[in-house]
Amino acid sequence: MSAAFDLVTADRLVTCDPALATAADPLGVLTPGAVLLEGGRVVFAGRVEAARAAVPAGAAITERAAPLVTPGLVDAHTHAAWVGSRHAEYALRMQGADYEAIAKAGGGIASTMRAVRAASRDEIAAELTQRLGRMVRAGVTTVEVKSGYGLDLASEEKLLEAVAQARAAAGTPRVVATYLALHALPPEAGDRGAYAAHVTQNDLPALAAAGLFAFVDAYIDRSAFSTADAAPLFRRARELGLGVRAHVGQFADVGGAELAASVGARSADHLEHLGPSGADALAAAGVRAALLPVASFTLGQAPPPVGLLRSAGVPLVVASDANPGTAPTESLPLALALAVRVYGLTVAEALLGATREAAISLGLTDVGVLVPGASADLVLWDLPHEAALVQPWGVPRARTVIGRGRVLSGSG
Amino acid sequence: MSAAFDLVTADRLVTCDPALATAADPLGVLTPGAVLLEGGRVVFAGRVEAARAAVPAGAAITERAAPLVTPGLVDAHTHAAWVGSRHAEYALRMQGADYEAIAKAGGGIASTMRAVRAASRDEIAAELTQRLGRMVRAGVTTVEVKSGYGLDLASEEKLLEAVAQARAAAGTPRVVATYLALHALPPEAGDRGAYAAHVTQNDLPALAAAGLFAFVDAYIDRSAFSTADAAPLFRRARELGLGVRAHVGQFADVGGAELAASVGARSADHLEHLGPSGADALAAAGVRAALLPVASFTLGQAPPPVGLLRSAGVPLVVASDANPGTAPTESLPLALALAVRVYGLTVAEALLGATREAAISLGLTDVGVLVPGASADLVLWDLPHEAALVQPWGVPRARTVIGRGRVLSGSG
Repeated sequence: MSAAFDLVTADRLVTCDPALATAADPLGVLTPGAVLLEGGRVVFAGRVEAARAAVPAGAAITERAAPLVTPGLVDAHTHAAWVGSRHAEYALRMQGADYEAIAKAGGGIASTMRAVRAASRDEIAAELTQRLGRMVRAGVTTVEVKSGYGLDLASEEKLLEAVAQARAAAGTPRVVATYLALHALPPEAGDRGAYAAHVTQNDLPALAAAGLFAFVDAYIDRSAFSTADAAPLFRRARELGLGVRAHVGQFADVGGAELAASVGARSADHLEHLGPSGADALAAAGVRAALLPVASFTLGQAPPPVGLLRSAGVPLVVASDANPGTAPTESLPLALALAVRVYGLTVAEALLGATREAAISLGLTDVGVLVPGASADLVLWDLPHEAALVQPWGVPRARTVIGRGRVLSGSG
Repeated sequence: MSAAFDLVTADRLVTCDPALATAADPLGVLTPGAVLLEGGRVVFAGRVEAARAAVPAGAAITERAAPLVTPGLVDAHTHAAWVGSRHAEYALRMQGADYEAIAKAGGGIASTMRAVRAASRDEIAAELTQRLGRMVRAGVTTVEVKSGYGLDLASEEKLLEAVAQARAAAGTPRVVATYLALHALPPEAGDRGAYAAHVTQNDLPALAAAGLFAFVDAYIDRSAFSTADAAPLFRRARELGLGVRAHVGQFADVGGAELAASVGARSADHLEHLGPSGADALAAAGVRAALLPVASFTLGQAPPPVGLLRSAGVPLVVASDANPGTAPTESLPLALALAVRVYGLTVAEALLGATREAAISLGLTDVGVLVPGASADLVLWDLPHEAALVQPWGVPRARTVIGRGRVLSGSG
């Protein structure tokens, strides 16, 4: 994309622009439409004729066309920084073994912890870079990546540095790093409360000083951490100027949604178990609900209460939850297909949840939408309609993926 | 692969060789293992040292290594020869509309029929070639492709010629063509019985004369064709020296399994609705059960009676059912992930169902296994274990795909 201007035309341009949205067309689709890119930004989005007219006379221009163009997908919940494999545990689980029981027996997160602790930063960064590349080819241009498999200060720092290293590699998507401070109790720790206090008072400020992450996260559940464990962590994070996201209600509703709301979290994630007071609290505080259908599918769980979230007015996000245990996936489009098929989301809900709403949950307003001033992050799809995008293809259907104005994947 | 010999070593070589199978290891896995390829065939499969010793002194040799190597995947049930898109219908169905009702209203198969009739042979072949390329990248080296969207003699001939044209394109998998003679009633026909008789007496022999297909298929169900419609077709096919496969029990058990068994069909496909007598009939006749989990997932159906099939002793096949309506997928690995997660198949059942058993159902004995004399069709996976292969990655994890000794996809 060496030309001064890039013009992308589409039979269907899905802008996700709230200004173009209607009840009948929540995605703000222009048929046809065009975006004009310059210097890594969208400088115009609208009708094709007007886009052409916006090019200064004599300017060099590269043209691309596709049946369907959307904003680059935004994956707002991943544990993509892992090494090792938990295939044996997966096979056991498929034969009926219980995830929480496997975790208690030293499998699950602790198994990946051992692999991460044994790996070098370079090894972790190399695997993460490969994984991010596969995500890009699926159409993703922004990815949240959590730490959380180190479970001690040095290993978490190594993970977060590996994330920074992968972020700097060529062809990767935009990466938003999250310090998953409370994920599981490491084997060397004895008491959840004491461990949580240590992480809050010692590890969080030490790691925050290096500026390696924008968010702090905790896994709040009946077999994980309590709201009492997580509350001081979240408050400290906010004092340090960091954002908060939280794993809430995957196996039981232990009040995580109310806590997330009370600390102004950007997102509450999972929510398979959520009551009306939790939903109301999320809505009142503007916390987005990040739904993770690959995880509930892999675990054989019932869907979260989508109707309750809708009626409470909680904006929905859909993410991959990419992780080695409960969501061994690298495809946000697969998560969208499951969200529509299993969770009953509409096509528009799913797509907004993987673009604009996901971006807002990451504190980003210049991705996930195709409007003037936005980052030039978009996907040219080898598909005729956004309703085809949420079908279970199982293979990448992105023809060209553009991030910050540069071709990250596909034909240039 | 210009060298005389190609040596592929694997930490885990999944041979699918019945001679190596045990109750504990139905896949016949060698750890490590190697295959030696020459002239498009496997000339040795076994221990690495022995494989090296089998190379004649002074012969040129190319070496490849991977953590996991399997036979090339065999997709034994696809409707991959389609054009057009049924995204609007998909979105309606996800909101609760009924597939059979959509079909009766002129959607479904009839909608794709209109697109296929309007397309040229070249257009159909071009789309099919693209689709086959995506399948190869997912790890598939043999694909069954059905006609069935033409619904008249000239259009079915066009489809079958397009399949032959795509088969001859570079980089495509091995293609086995099936004439899906009874798929839906075309709008110009009035009566199912008369239409079936016309197809049997006129279209089948006319098309068979051109040698464009190896199998004849019919869709037997409560809203499709009856066993009385299909029986003469299948008998005529057998008289013409053709194999039979049948769509059976997708929405109701109307006796299709018993019919398939009675005519010596190679496979009975779908089987969401099947009783004990049907299962026993399939087992007695050696008919394979082709399970299509993407279709039942897309339609929101309960799984077929896998326990019944197992206890009756029916060998299982897993296929993608790739089609524009009920299984808009191109990924056999996605079907395997669903087969394990939703149908409760073991890893070994799923993998044998997409290799050796699928091949047998297509009348092929030289693919789906890595044994001396077999075709050099194999996949080097970017995965550590076959149990990782059936996880829901949603993106291709095949590193190198080799078909008939040539690299079809990935690093050479």
